[in-house]
Amino acid sequence: MTVNHADLANAVRALAMDAVQAANSGHPGMPMGMADAATVLFTQHLKYDPQWPEWPDRDRFVLSAGHGSMLIYALLYLTGYKKPTLDQIRNFRQLGSPCAGHPENFELPGVETTTGPLGQGLATAVGMALAERHLNARFGDAVQDHHTWVIAGDGCLMEGINHEAIGLAGHLKLGRLNVIWDDNRITIDGATSMSTSEDVKARYEASGWHVVSCDGHDAASIDAALRAAKADPRPSLIACRTIIGYGAPNKQGTAATHGSPLGTAEIAAARETLGWNHEPFEIPADILDAWRTSGARGTKVSADWKVNAAKAEGYAEFLTWLDGSALKAAGPALKAHIDALIAAPQTVATRKASELALGAINAAVPNTIGGSADLTGSNNTLTKGLGTLDAANYGGRYVYYGIREFGMAAAMNGMALHGGLVPYGGTFLVFTDYCRPAIRLSALQRAQAIYVMTHDSIGLGEDGPTHQPIEHVMSLRVMPNVLVMRPADVVETAECWALALENDSGPTVLALSRQNLPQVRTEAGENLSAKGAYRLRAASAARKVVFLATGSEVQAALGAADQLEAAGIGCDVVSMPCWELFDLQSDAYQADILPEDALIVSVEAGTTIGWERYTGRKGLRLGIDRFGASAPAEALYEKFGLTADAIAKAVRGKLA
Amino acid sequence: MTVNHADLANAVRALAMDAVQAANSGHPGMPMGMADAATVLFTQHLKYDPQWPEWPDRDRFVLSAGHGSMLIYALLYLTGYKKPTLDQIRNFRQLGSPCAGHPENFELPGVETTTGPLGQGLATAVGMALAERHLNARFGDAVQDHHTWVIAGDGCLMEGINHEAIGLAGHLKLGRLNVIWDDNRITIDGATSMSTSEDVKARYEASGWHVVSCDGHDAASIDAALRAAKADPRPSLIACRTIIGYGAPNKQGTAATHGSPLGTAEIAAARETLGWNHEPFEIPADILDAWRTSGARGTKVSADWKVNAAKAEGYAEFLTWLDGSALKAAGPALKAHIDALIAAPQTVATRKASELALGAINAAVPNTIGGSADLTGSNNTLTKGLGTLDAANYGGRYVYYGIREFGMAAAMNGMALHGGLVPYGGTFLVFTDYCRPAIRLSALQRAQAIYVMTHDSIGLGEDGPTHQPIEHVMSLRVMPNVLVMRPADVVETAECWALALENDSGPTVLALSRQNLPQVRTEAGENLSAKGAYRLRAASAARKVVFLATGSEVQAALGAADQLEAAGIGCDVVSMPCWELFDLQSDAYQADILPEDALIVSVEAGTTIGWERYTGRKGLRLGIDRFGASAPAEALYEKFGLTADAIAKAVRGKLA
Repeated sequence: MTVNHADLANAVRALAMDAVQAANSGHPGMPMGMADAATVLFTQHLKYDPQWPEWPDRDRFVLSAGHGSMLIYALLYLTGYKKPTLDQIRNFRQLGSPCAGHPENFELPGVETTTGPLGQGLATAVGMALAERHLNARFGDAVQDHHTWVIAGDGCLMEGINHEAIGLAGHLKLGRLNVIWDDNRITIDGATSMSTSEDVKARYEASGWHVVSCDGHDAASIDAALRAAKADPRPSLIACRTIIGYGAPNKQGTAATHGSPLGTAEIAAARETLGWNHEPFEIPADILDAWRTSGARGTKVSADWKVNAAKAEGYAEFLTWLDGSALKAAGPALKAHIDALIAAPQTVATRKASELALGAINAAVPNTIGGSADLTGSNNTLTKGLGTLDAANYGGRYVYYGIREFGMAAAMNGMALHGGLVPYGGTFLVFTDYCRPAIRLSALQRAQAIYVMTHDSIGLGEDGPTHQPIEHVMSLRVMPNVLVMRPADVVETAECWALALENDSGPTVLALSRQNLPQVRTEAGENLSAKGAYRLRAASAARKVVFLATGSEVQAALGAADQLEAAGIGCDVVSMPCWELFDLQSDAYQADILPEDALIVSVEAGTTIGWERYTGRKGLRLGIDRFGASAPAEALYEKFGLTADAIAKAVRGKLA
Repeated sequence: MTVNHADLANAVRALAMDAVQAANSGHPGMPMGMADAATVLFTQHLKYDPQWPEWPDRDRFVLSAGHGSMLIYALLYLTGYKKPTLDQIRNFRQLGSPCAGHPENFELPGVETTTGPLGQGLATAVGMALAERHLNARFGDAVQDHHTWVIAGDGCLMEGINHEAIGLAGHLKLGRLNVIWDDNRITIDGATSMSTSEDVKARYEASGWHVVSCDGHDAASIDAALRAAKADPRPSLIACRTIIGYGAPNKQGTAATHGSPLGTAEIAAARETLGWNHEPFEIPADILDAWRTSGARGTKVSADWKVNAAKAEGYAEFLTWLDGSALKAAGPALKAHIDALIAAPQTVATRKASELALGAINAAVPNTIGGSADLTGSNNTLTKGLGTLDAANYGGRYVYYGIREFGMAAAMNGMALHGGLVPYGGTFLVFTDYCRPAIRLSALQRAQAIYVMTHDSIGLGEDGPTHQPIEHVMSLRVMPNVLVMRPADVVETAECWALALENDSGPTVLALSRQNLPQVRTEAGENLSAKGAYRLRAASAARKVVFLATGSEVQAALGAADQLEAAGIGCDVVSMPCWELFDLQSDAYQADILPEDALIVSVEAGTTIGWERYTGRKGLRLGIDRFGASAPAEALYEKFGLTADAIAKAVRGKLA
């Protein structure tokens, strides 16, 4: 028997409904509805090699509608990836199976990005498509010349991030980005008409996209649409009209297929409807062979690429970008920068200090990509000679992201996950809230995105409480796998940048001051910020107090310590740029920094909740546990009791 | 001399440039660019009464581009509001002046909502416009019949939230919402063409909006556009082509006017260009008179309204909605509900418990407005008989917000700020990240929005780490002025709902379980959750341990206590549904709950950072400090050591 398109697509459907049923949880509707489109994509268009999932010039495929995870697991298995095995699919959503409820990039090669939080897969894909164009501009077609494909659902399109993502992609004319929209007109609550009246196609056209439509259950129609998408120089939306749960005769087309097993009776009926007369998890040999043959097409393509790419000028350098070794040049550059600072100390805002560090980094490291969400001059993220990365010049290294914090962060994730590039981007620290869902995905996906978050406290002054972060530093510290750094001066800022570049398994958030800060580090030596916290100044008089301060408040703590020492009260001043790194130090080191017999006093212009971790319940926590106010910075530091005078007074009160 | 339009508008411009100059910080460009449009709006269209800012049927005016705060301060002063005074404007951005860097709703009557975080003003206005239609449907034209006007900038339109907001408004056909877009083609980084290529008008049309254009410096053109907007039954975008910093001859039309004082030389040149030959902060008497006369028009209108509204059926009830007294019926209803639970205990998920409580509340209280961001069946937010609130039935009480978490939260703020309604809305707890910027504005604005956040831990199971909140409860606790509640059973859930309804000066977040939880509260009595934490079970054997647990982990702590008590280790079990309320209790109460001589053990299926606040450094913190995993809930509780067995074992280890 000849294997036809329906056989191939039905294999996907069968695995999806069987696995969801076995797990007794999951989402069968989307994989069954999109099986035809995905089959056409994977057998006729997508460039990939199951034997070499890391092939640098593979097409990137992003399942933005991540709840339909069984779609990609089925495809990876059928096309011949080593993982998942059929047993792993049988264990869909069970502890230890790489076939997690939502696709996780760290579980399976072939899963390019973790998806599930709606809208972010597509927004991440924008970054991948941008990375491709940049690498293409730098290394040429022989090295980098691929497409980025996305399957997205109505949820991905309704989320706010979609607007930012497609606005950015349209502006940047990322023609190699093609989004297949699973237009099934169903959401969890019911018909999409319950909550939206939008003309999606017109909206995409308004954002500079090419739009093409197809019948999502007609292979020829799908194929024609994908061809049209590839041919058009704009990013493309392929509106793919589908029936959710296609093949389940009684439930298809309804929200009932979205997020629950179909049930054994409906699955039996679906088998009949689809003409799929095979046992659960059984894929007939001829159908599996046809899938595997299709998957094997890529092996020659990838081999040819390897030969041709290796001949390309710059290929050796390209490899250093991919393996991260290009970043190593930052070390000596930053060391020289710090040596110069020790020789000639500078009083600058740490945002300016970040610009100085970036000047050294960007000159030494070729594969950083900078940017800001419309705050370039405030975030100090642009250094000399980077050039604008836009549709006119994909070889530039600086992206004007526009007023799109979340879109920027998701695009940074996409660049980091694509490989070859290290993105950093800026906004005000208070707007980490706007991009928080993407920072979480940086952390979960272990993506090296570097967030340059300036105006990190009431020190920003007059803009007032909407712009003054109070809880933000702490709210990022509680997020797993994020390095949160709040440097105290120009030297610590350079040290923190060095650590951010070394932190290749997750994001780093740099919290930077608007206001000038004197240089408190004046001696050459090791990277003290790497310890997370270190004794900046030891007590002269008998030690009774240990100040534990971060960022701009280190200066205030030093001032308070001066006053207390003058009264015979010995004070250590510890600068603590990074909790996470301090927590990794030995017990002995931690005990030395935080002695039991001293009053531990935390000083940070933000929430005090959380500082008990280091001060204990009996220590003193100086900070701000309410929203800020609009006034010049000096007036606010007075008001909130974070001047040297007020700190010294509070400590005296506590000791009394 | 006759006062003309230009005189009126130039008074706004002069105050804006003078105040920014005096403060030496701020944003003159937007007020100067939008002075003409705002003058036409306030003198010819807006329904308001400076003598009665709280007039329930006033038009709502939202300055979504909040950085242009001097625009509204100037307008409030000129039209005759009691505040701000000219002195307060002179003290723009200084400590104690109500003329804060960004407009704050709690500083000045006439400022309807705090703006500054871009895009949210417009999204909040959607909620105001929805509230107006709902109240109109319930009480009629004589009581409620007003417009909602917004001034928004390019930033507001580029932010993702804009897509959610206009999608919702277009779907709901909120024709009384009119947005004046300050189309000045400038952002902070420079020309909008650097970062966007969107056809804004086409996008709004695709979302079901009416679009009209005008010359933003031609009063007749502006007036015609505003008339067209009012006449059209759809929400309207008024594309108002302007020159940023209009009148400053050397800087207008450039980003240089956006966020910095113009400088004395340029201000002098602007005075000349505008023909404004008056001292700083001086408004000539005839011009001020003309403004005040215009502002006084509303006094008769509001007086007439008062007479007519008072005759309307239901007016007395309307007043109880406005002053919050309608909510009081919830108390007895919830008491009866709890009594029934004591009589016949129930094992249900706390999300289901929330539905049960809501059933009692919504039946007793007429002015709650429910909803969910497309997770109605999962969030359990819909109770019987509410009816769908949509364009076909503005009198319904349940909103299908679609997959728009941020848009939902902003709309809830708008409803709460409008007055008369108490909104609640649901999504998964993990997606508090998506609406976090709006939760922050609920808190800052003291808006009573109630967030029903379900699936509050690894207990959601198979959906895996993208859907499992780890850090979310703690990250909300560190935000000022938010009540974060994680009830342990069906009774505590009802208690927490009672407290949420009483908390009329800020938001409440309810963190609710997906999984069933046994009823641990079996005795009638006071609302124990009001204490924040209380002793659920006292030790039998000599007390060595105090468990401090929340939500679903209270059950596990009770199980562990059983085991330890059996071994002679006395354990108190404290349930702690709300940190913020516990922190308000007396020292004596707190000391009684957290005795010095016991090992304090926190148990919560989330980050342990922060729990040192109650356990001290030497206590034990059981929780999860990494991302979750995809597996059935029971398997995850095993894996993360949060079963009764594992907890008991950890405590024994610590005591050993």
